[in-house]
Amino acid sequence: MTNMAKRLFDFQNGEDLKIPVLIKSADVRVAKNGKKFIALVFQDQSGQITAKLWDASEADIAQYKAGEVVLLSGKRELYQDKPQIKIHSMRLATQEEGNDPQQFLQRAPEPESEIIDAINEFVFEITNANWNRIVRKLLHDHPEFYEFPAAKSNHHAFAGGLAFHTLSILRLAQSVVNQYSSVNKSLLYAGAILHDMGKTIEMTGPVSTEYTLAGNLIGHIVLVDEAIVEAAKELKINLEAEDMLMLRHVVLAHHGLLEYGSPVRPQLLEAQILHDLDELDASINMLTTAYQHAEPGDFTERLFGMDNRRFYRPTKGQTYPDPGTN
Amino acid sequence: MTNMAKRLFDFQNGEDLKIPVLIKSADVRVAKNGKKFIALVFQDQSGQITAKLWDASEADIAQYKAGEVVLLSGKRELYQDKPQIKIHSMRLATQEEGNDPQQFLQRAPEPESEIIDAINEFVFEITNANWNRIVRKLLHDHPEFYEFPAAKSNHHAFAGGLAFHTLSILRLAQSVVNQYSSVNKSLLYAGAILHDMGKTIEMTGPVSTEYTLAGNLIGHIVLVDEAIVEAAKELKINLEAEDMLMLRHVVLAHHGLLEYGSPVRPQLLEAQILHDLDELDASINMLTTAYQHAEPGDFTERLFGMDNRRFYRPTKGQTYPDPGTN
Amino acid sequence: MTNMAKRLFDFQNGEDLKIPVLIKSADVRVAKNGKKFIALVFQDQSGQITAKLWDASEADIAQYKAGEVVLLSGKRELYQDKPQIKIHSMRLATQEEGNDPQQFLQRAPEPESEIIDAINEFVFEITNANWNRIVRKLLHDHPEFYEFPAAKSNHHAFAGGLAFHTLSILRLAQSVVNQYSSVNKSLLYAGAILHDMGKTIEMTGPVSTEYTLAGNLIGHIVLVDEAIVEAAKELKINLEAEDMLMLRHVVLAHHGLLEYGSPVRPQLLEAQILHDLDELDASINMLTTAYQHAEPGDFTERLFGMDNRRFYRPTKGQTYPDPGTN
Amino acid sequence: MTNMAKRLFDFQNGEDLKIPVLIKSADVRVAKNGKKFIALVFQDQSGQITAKLWDASEADIAQYKAGEVVLLSGKRELYQDKPQIKIHSMRLATQEEGNDPQQFLQRAPEPESEIIDAINEFVFEITNANWNRIVRKLLHDHPEFYEFPAAKSNHHAFAGGLAFHTLSILRLAQSVVNQYSSVNKSLLYAGAILHDMGKTIEMTGPVSTEYTLAGNLIGHIVLVDEAIVEAAKELKINLEAEDMLMLRHVVLAHHGLLEYGSPVRPQLLEAQILHDLDELDASINMLTTAYQHAEPGDFTERLFGMDNRRFYRPTKGQTYPDPGTN
Amino acid sequence: MTNMAKRLFDFQNGEDLKIPVLIKSADVRVAKNGKKFIALVFQDQSGQITAKLWDASEADIAQYKAGEVVLLSGKRELYQDKPQIKIHSMRLATQEEGNDPQQFLQRAPEPESEIIDAINEFVFEITNANWNRIVRKLLHDHPEFYEFPAAKSNHHAFAGGLAFHTLSILRLAQSVVNQYSSVNKSLLYAGAILHDMGKTIEMTGPVSTEYTLAGNLIGHIVLVDEAIVEAAKELKINLEAEDMLMLRHVVLAHHGLLEYGSPVRPQLLEAQILHDLDELDASINMLTTAYQHAEPGDFTERLFGMDNRRFYRPTKGQTYPDPGTN
Amino acid sequence: MTNMAKRLFDFQNGEDLKIPVLIKSADVRVAKNGKKFIALVFQDQSGQITAKLWDASEADIAQYKAGEVVLLSGKRELYQDKPQIKIHSMRLATQEEGNDPQQFLQRAPEPESEIIDAINEFVFEITNANWNRIVRKLLHDHPEFYEFPAAKSNHHAFAGGLAFHTLSILRLAQSVVNQYSSVNKSLLYAGAILHDMGKTIEMTGPVSTEYTLAGNLIGHIVLVDEAIVEAAKELKINLEAEDMLMLRHVVLAHHGLLEYGSPVRPQLLEAQILHDLDELDASINMLTTAYQHAEPGDFTERLFGMDNRRFYRPTKGQTYPDPGTN
Repeated sequence: MTNMAKRLFDFQNGEDLKIPVLIKSADVRVAKNGKKFIALVFQDQSGQITAKLWDASEADIAQYKAGEVVLLSGKRELYQDKPQIKIHSMRLATQEEGNDPQQFLQRAPEPESEIIDAINEFVFEITNANWNRIVRKLLHDHPEFYEFPAAKSNHHAFAGGLAFHTLSILRLAQSVVNQYSSVNKSLLYAGAILHDMGKTIEMTGPVSTEYTLAGNLIGHIVLVDEAIVEAAKELKINLEAEDMLMLRHVVLAHHGLLEYGSPVRPQLLEAQILHDLDELDASINMLTTAYQHAEPGDFTERLFGMDNRRFYRPTKGQTYPDPGTN
Repeated sequence: MTNMAKRLFDFQNGEDLKIPVLIKSADVRVAKNGKKFIALVFQDQSGQITAKLWDASEADIAQYKAGEVVLLSGKRELYQDKPQIKIHSMRLATQEEGNDPQQFLQRAPEPESEIIDAINEFVFEITNANWNRIVRKLLHDHPEFYEFPAAKSNHHAFAGGLAFHTLSILRLAQSVVNQYSSVNKSLLYAGAILHDMGKTIEMTGPVSTEYTLAGNLIGHIVLVDEAIVEAAKELKINLEAEDMLMLRHVVLAHHGLLEYGSPVRPQLLEAQILHDLDELDASINMLTTAYQHAEPGDFTERLFGMDNRRFYRPTKGQTYPDPGTN
Repeated sequence: MTNMAKRLFDFQNGEDLKIPVLIKSADVRVAKNGKKFIALVFQDQSGQITAKLWDASEADIAQYKAGEVVLLSGKRELYQDKPQIKIHSMRLATQEEGNDPQQFLQRAPEPESEIIDAINEFVFEITNANWNRIVRKLLHDHPEFYEFPAAKSNHHAFAGGLAFHTLSILRLAQSVVNQYSSVNKSLLYAGAILHDMGKTIEMTGPVSTEYTLAGNLIGHIVLVDEAIVEAAKELKINLEAEDMLMLRHVVLAHHGLLEYGSPVRPQLLEAQILHDLDELDASINMLTTAYQHAEPGDFTERLFGMDNRRFYRPTKGQTYPDPGTN
Repeated sequence: MTNMAKRLFDFQNGEDLKIPVLIKSADVRVAKNGKKFIALVFQDQSGQITAKLWDASEADIAQYKAGEVVLLSGKRELYQDKPQIKIHSMRLATQEEGNDPQQFLQRAPEPESEIIDAINEFVFEITNANWNRIVRKLLHDHPEFYEFPAAKSNHHAFAGGLAFHTLSILRLAQSVVNQYSSVNKSLLYAGAILHDMGKTIEMTGPVSTEYTLAGNLIGHIVLVDEAIVEAAKELKINLEAEDMLMLRHVVLAHHGLLEYGSPVRPQLLEAQILHDLDELDASINMLTTAYQHAEPGDFTERLFGMDNRRFYRPTKGQTYPDPGTN
Repeated sequence: MTNMAKRLFDFQNGEDLKIPVLIKSADVRVAKNGKKFIALVFQDQSGQITAKLWDASEADIAQYKAGEVVLLSGKRELYQDKPQIKIHSMRLATQEEGNDPQQFLQRAPEPESEIIDAINEFVFEITNANWNRIVRKLLHDHPEFYEFPAAKSNHHAFAGGLAFHTLSILRLAQSVVNQYSSVNKSLLYAGAILHDMGKTIEMTGPVSTEYTLAGNLIGHIVLVDEAIVEAAKELKINLEAEDMLMLRHVVLAHHGLLEYGSPVRPQLLEAQILHDLDELDASINMLTTAYQHAEPGDFTERLFGMDNRRFYRPTKGQTYPDPGTN
Repeated sequence: MTNMAKRLFDFQNGEDLKIPVLIKSADVRVAKNGKKFIALVFQDQSGQITAKLWDASEADIAQYKAGEVVLLSGKRELYQDKPQIKIHSMRLATQEEGNDPQQFLQRAPEPESEIIDAINEFVFEITNANWNRIVRKLLHDHPEFYEFPAAKSNHHAFAGGLAFHTLSILRLAQSVVNQYSSVNKSLLYAGAILHDMGKTIEMTGPVSTEYTLAGNLIGHIVLVDEAIVEAAKELKINLEAEDMLMLRHVVLAHHGLLEYGSPVRPQLLEAQILHDLDELDASINMLTTAYQHAEPGDFTERLFGMDNRRFYRPTKGQTYPDPGTN
């Protein structure tokens, strides 16, 4: 029982484990033999792993649902080059055993309070009064901004990932602003803070993340634009003034290409830069995560978010800290 | 002087003319010989035609500007397969000679009052109360909707073209609703009426039409979405309810493809139908206009809005009434 | 035995059934355990559903073939989000039990005789004598036109679907003709009736539909063009005259884009309209079918014929009648 | 006058010339100074070159038309990197001076009679009786096949170019057949002979080549398919037999890709090979022509038919005989 | 035991076999029941076939590895339309039983010595001294060139396939050179011999072929360019001279399109021809192989290397010799 | 004469000027009236501007060539929205008047010596000995690296632009390295310094920049790879070791996409980052240059290097220093 403190990815393939984990998702399916099983994804702060509970009874189906913490006994194995858990047995964790889903979420590698402080430092730098007020108001009205992931999968898919991704872009933006005097710092910072805020409406939250109906039918880019417009109305800021059109444009255009869902392509220097920094930070996050799960000297699995490319992890030298766990 | 009642396209190539026309645009340029000239586009209700005023003096440049009515004496000619006017002389028209730009605009083939009535008939058919109220409010708040063209060029590029295009789609939609019982009539009608209303903000108006800064940086699709959201707020309609997400979706998705500027692709039956009817009506309008300017047995010029295709005008049979003049 | 009158899609998931059904297709495969099974598709007028007959004997394989009617006892279940039948037992139906495959085909929602009458009404409207004679001759020579589906899967994939799809386009075309005076009614109607007639050669028929060798190597667009040319020869119509080139063009161009298999793009107004109406009717049919199989408040499965999009079925309001059953 | 025997491309830039030439095309246009000029293309067996006749009188316009032979006095010059003629004077040639347009056409580098014989040799090799009879019949019915160019511009754009291109493909095909025993010789030869025969209907002929209405609305691929079907009917060959579907497929698929106008993609080995050899021969012809007009050590102009690439002509070594003059 | 001389593809579906075969690849996986199995590919000179060894013990996993020869007892079956072996039993072959992997490799249809001689004949024809010396040196330095396959799968995926593919291109090139006098024979031959030589570095060899790290990170096109540059340095040939730039260009451009991995597109006639012949020979090889495995009157499986097309094998006439076995 | 110290872009449209300028390019052409003129591009440190010398004599053509300094008297004007010079008179500058082309080149905004020092600082940070030695050797062997532009036009098209672009990327890379611990600093710096060094072979130099034959036929990406391989050979570094494959990969892949000319796509984290930073710095440079030439409140001209987009210059706030002049 000494390995109770170990986490999912502390075990090697072939090793037995007995630890508490969170059920991230649980889909009931019918096997080829006609019996039901549950396709499970377990999660703790070290990462996520799949498992199947064969010959699932109705009682199993009733109790093993997304969001539950279970005591899992099993063995880590490889199935088609991906790790999975072969379940020996499992049961729901009791309160005393630490049945708190929050304890099992992957989190940003910096504490939430530090991320809040760091982003607020950047807000101070926004010298255009209208932009500053809107950014403050939206941060204030959306405290869940600091809890959400940046995506359902792909990149920064962990609690606090949205704010951490935003902060990472701001730090890159700071370097750009220092290096190129033609860049409007206030506009780039304001755009960076707001650009993905619509994801708090597009998705359901950090646990069992799904897309909402608004997310599917409207999309996070238009949703945040609506929020900006509403904030400006409430603050009695003139929406037809150039500065407001610029702020909205930088946010609307941040996907860079129409086929990626932006209704307009970047037509301001800061819109182009925000798009480039967004892609740069997302790529580094995706690759660092992928490298963690690849052996030195091997290629990663194909990465959907990187045009299905595989990346090579060199045999030595770099280490790849989990970009989603502090 | 008896031909004063004739209009630009009533003259043949090679024929002399002396008529009042509106200057639609006037660009000052430098010729290869170093002297200035004015590249003009003249317009009356029969259509538009280009001309050049060579060796333009500063006085010429000062007085011949877009929006002015002039008395034009010249000859219609062909230049690189397109008609143009060779200017003999011209001067500003006096008040008595009818210096009213409104008289020279191409207009929708139905009177504005009939278009208003016809659209209002469709509004009655919108039985969802929220959609009905929003459509009414936006029509009421945007009386210029009945004056605007549907585009700067391409299709329905005449005064009242926006409303006439909307009405044409509604009439097609009525046939679809009658034929297919699975279609939500209220949603299709509401979406049709609102889909291009953002163009009243995207463009400057029916005379000397240009894109506004908001049109360039935000685009008419997001602009009308903002208007819907504002209207709902004022009418205290719940924006998070399914019906509002559906209405906004139908409008946001009406360009059909992301690369055409819709931030989301159609995910409702009515969104798909609205997109298809929008394209159908625009195509028929573009082709009818092009056929008017082609000889029977010839091909039209290449049409930018139809993937640069040329279309064949048969030698006999059909007539092609000007789709933009009543 | 009282549920003998119920049909496949009248049962809920988890419910037992015992009904006669048609075997639409039967593929013999080897399971992972090395034993043979038959992958079956059952069909009645309510739709189609898959099933697997495990551990199939040689006798099973010999008797359970496409086109046979069986008495099926089993349970409806969900497998990977799609309905399937878990077979308890089955045997061939006797003559007395109603062993007539025709009784189990999905059919167009209007009786064949009414479809024939309705199409003939449109033929009357074709005033160009050459087009009228060719249309009459080809309808006369291809009585199977009224029996075929419009496609193997995708849209209107039921007996009589080809003629019903044609009639739906004609009805839309009638609205267009009434609304836009520049459209040549005779050409649009003639093109609409002929456009997909090559499918009677491209496919094998309404039961166990497959593509023929001619369908694969020549394609239905060129096959119908050949039929038009042959008809003109027999009727001693001048193939080099403009009207025949126009009719053939409208048919050849109806897929709209070269990459969709048309050897030429639309270069006549009526060719463009026919293409647009063809897509519109096919889309409405595909979506209505998909909505029928989705729950209110859910998304449909991804639709191959709609660029793999999923569509949202609203929680209330519309009903979606089976577009392929009268 | 000794240079009367010299031809257009025997003169250097800057050199005066006085020779008879054919007017290939003559377009009347209006210059920037408002006066008319004729944009001419002159042609003799050495190639084609442009010129402008400034301040053209109505008499000039009346007499200098495509198809006329003129006595041209002028100077060869470079205009925007392309050769052109500066006209000193010109007049219509008299009968005695050799006013025969046929003498000025570029021609295939082999005499027509030899091309006919060579193609007939290949016909002997077609051992499938149906294919052989159809090929013979179509060659017999289309004697103009030996006079037509293979294209209006691009490749083999000279009298006899169509047959010469066909023969070149047959010779390549012979090498392929000898090298790969899996290839059906009869099918490849029959397909090669027929593949472009529809161009005799698609275009107007070797002088002043234009596309016909049938060429524009139907296209040469479907036109030759119709001819094959007609021939089979007359010869009472069963069109539904596999061999006829194969022959038609090879011809229909020879553009290789749907977006290049083939209604089906190659699905037979011989269809794939014919497409590849067609492209190979066309490329070599285009490049050899382009190299002729480039200086050693320079790049050719951009070639539309080669994806707008420029090709490098090495400083020494190869010579590039005119691929279109015997 | 009399069928010991028969090979894998000499057996019909359903027939028992007992023969020695080579294990081409062996992947250990976990079955749905949680037990391990080995996914095997067996190979002899008649081709390759898959099999699964269920419930594999650790001893099985240890001994049945790629490169081993085993005595296989089993039955040939069809699984999802593809042939596979159902294993009855198997054991490692002893030395006496012929445990030599080389005996089980598929090979080019001409003996290696003849291929070497034939290629050397072509080397004699390269009259440019620099190109001749480089080709000789690289052939001399890379004797494995005659042992390698041309690809891991796709086309010429057998021992000696690289040299045989090269020779096939040279033979086609010879026909082209004889037919078109504008082609530089030396350049085309030199380019053809060198174009794929980088594959000897890109892949690991004819047994258990995999891509090397250099193959993945640099690619065979740049690898052979490096080899040419190195050879020129050692032979003290001026790399900046035109002829060396030409040779390198022909090799670098042979994939034809940037998206196929060539860093430059063809800009020399010979580069374009080499690309076309490379595709032609690869296509014929792929199709001939696919036809071998299809029944007359059927379509082949979808071919990845031919844009996922299926090809039709006619019911009679042609035979399709194994393109990879002499 | 007091304005002799003013430079080209210090004058307004309509203003007369009399200053020395460098002829950057001079193309002789024939005007529509048949007379020759010289199309000139003048240049000084403030930028480039076009002009035409009409009715050019042979003497004019002989003396006014690229690379000459002239005393120019003329007027700045607008022609089709772009500034140009209307020439009053011009003559070659004498030695005393400062006939030194170097004085008229646009230059990087930092002195060359500081750029050299700054890049050398980064070299110190490359701790992999092989990479460090290769970078040092190539910088040492290519002193012209500090003189070349980064491109013929597009971005950093000024003397020293190549090194300045490199340094800008290094500075961005420094920020990235500091922020993300998973990045290999040595690899990113070494790749950044080498990535565009092949441009010193691909182009002719900072004056009258053209592409060399090697540039056209091989391309700068393969040319620098060759240089790295050569350097490694001379330094006796093992080219097959992983670190050398990694360095070459980062350089070869820096265009990011095959269609942009990289023979392989990025498969290392550092390769992806280098590509992203290369694009970021190039975009900022292109946009800053374009903003300089646009008026506040206007859009720039369409930028070829930015997918033909136009960018909006806000009415106030930012200033845009010339990114190519110190």
